[in-house]
Amino acid sequence: MGFAEELRSSCAADWDAAVGHEFVDRLLGGSLPDSVLRHYLVQDYQFCDAFVALLGQAVASGPSLSSRLVFAGVLGAFAADENSYFRDCFDELSVPQADRNGPELTKATRDFDGLMRRALETRSYPDVLAVLLVAEWLYGDWAARAGDEESWPAAAKHREWIRLHNNPAYNGWVTWLREEFDAVAPTDAATLLRVTETFKDAVRLERAFFDSAMESPTPA
Amino acid sequence: MGFAEELRSSCAADWDAAVGHEFVDRLLGGSLPDSVLRHYLVQDYQFCDAFVALLGQAVASGPSLSSRLVFAGVLGAFAADENSYFRDCFDELSVPQADRNGPELTKATRDFDGLMRRALETRSYPDVLAVLLVAEWLYGDWAARAGDEESWPAAAKHREWIRLHNNPAYNGWVTWLREEFDAVAPTDAATLLRVTETFKDAVRLERAFFDSAMESPTPA
Repeated sequence: MGFAEELRSSCAADWDAAVGHEFVDRLLGGSLPDSVLRHYLVQDYQFCDAFVALLGQAVASGPSLSSRLVFAGVLGAFAADENSYFRDCFDELSVPQADRNGPELTKATRDFDGLMRRALETRSYPDVLAVLLVAEWLYGDWAARAGDEESWPAAAKHREWIRLHNNPAYNGWVTWLREEFDAVAPTDAATLLRVTETFKDAVRLERAFFDSAMESPTPA
Repeated sequence: MGFAEELRSSCAADWDAAVGHEFVDRLLGGSLPDSVLRHYLVQDYQFCDAFVALLGQAVASGPSLSSRLVFAGVLGAFAADENSYFRDCFDELSVPQADRNGPELTKATRDFDGLMRRALETRSYPDVLAVLLVAEWLYGDWAARAGDEESWPAAAKHREWIRLHNNPAYNGWVTWLREEFDAVAPTDAATLLRVTETFKDAVRLERAFFDSAMESPTPA
């Protein structure tokens, strides 16, 4: 068992609770209330800045040009796409500009943003990877529950969020992240402890983020 | 006069010597010996790793998502292009694999690589920008000497190196870098001194890199 799988197993309760969350059930079933989706996406969108910064730190702290270029490609796709899914959904759900760019952040959002910025500050490749890996792998896991595309919900606001985390390129990226993380598993006790805590915190906060989404003001 | 223009003026002798270098004269005139071009490109290619890392640090250290995304786009183009100019030239000039991936580095190459890695270590956005700006602006300046495309040299190995540094997207990127650098001009004396020295060192080392290219083993 690699380092990534070992850490995931060590926090299986939070991991499984996130992947099997009611939020995901309702998203996959097409019954997620718009008020919940709106609140969730508005909060999730606030991670863009720290997430892009983390990808940049991975380019800067990576061990080789070939590793750096993987993150460079992901950053390029991010820059090119201009968050079209978010923009389309915000338009469809009539999200005012103020809520897109500067909403009041929930505790779950502040906590996850803080975790990303602490990982950024370490400049440590395993710490940066731990956060990126949890975010991407866990999302890949819940999106994999969607199964064949025929069984996906009909509305674009639901199915495109699934597609973003369930497609061959995304799956390849998650696999690469996991192998990269395994390859740089820390050998000194202090770093190992810190990276392990970072990984576990990230999983716990992913679960809390779904919890928070379901507790949004008017969940209908 | 902005900070960028002020610093450029303060080291005009090195700047002008690089932009008006015999290497550039012969490149633009199509008379650059293959042995010189080969040596120059083999050494220049060794900067890819530190340069990509610096772009990543700019993403990580940038002041806003919009700034981060500019560098993300440049990184994406870098990842997508896979250095096709270098590969094509290396093939045409019969550069063996060992010289592409692990040549003996000249002092000029080691010095510039060291400068980039020191800027990376600072994590300071103005320091990172200073090196990127000099590298890109100075190259834009010499390539601008090529004038209209009709007057460019005929061989792809010469004209494509000009085109990479003389096209609307490249010019826009250099202008953006200059304005970004002006906007983050340091106000405290210590940082101002360090960034100024970094800028000047970069210009001096760009000139030294062209000098070194003309002193290559068999300049013909």
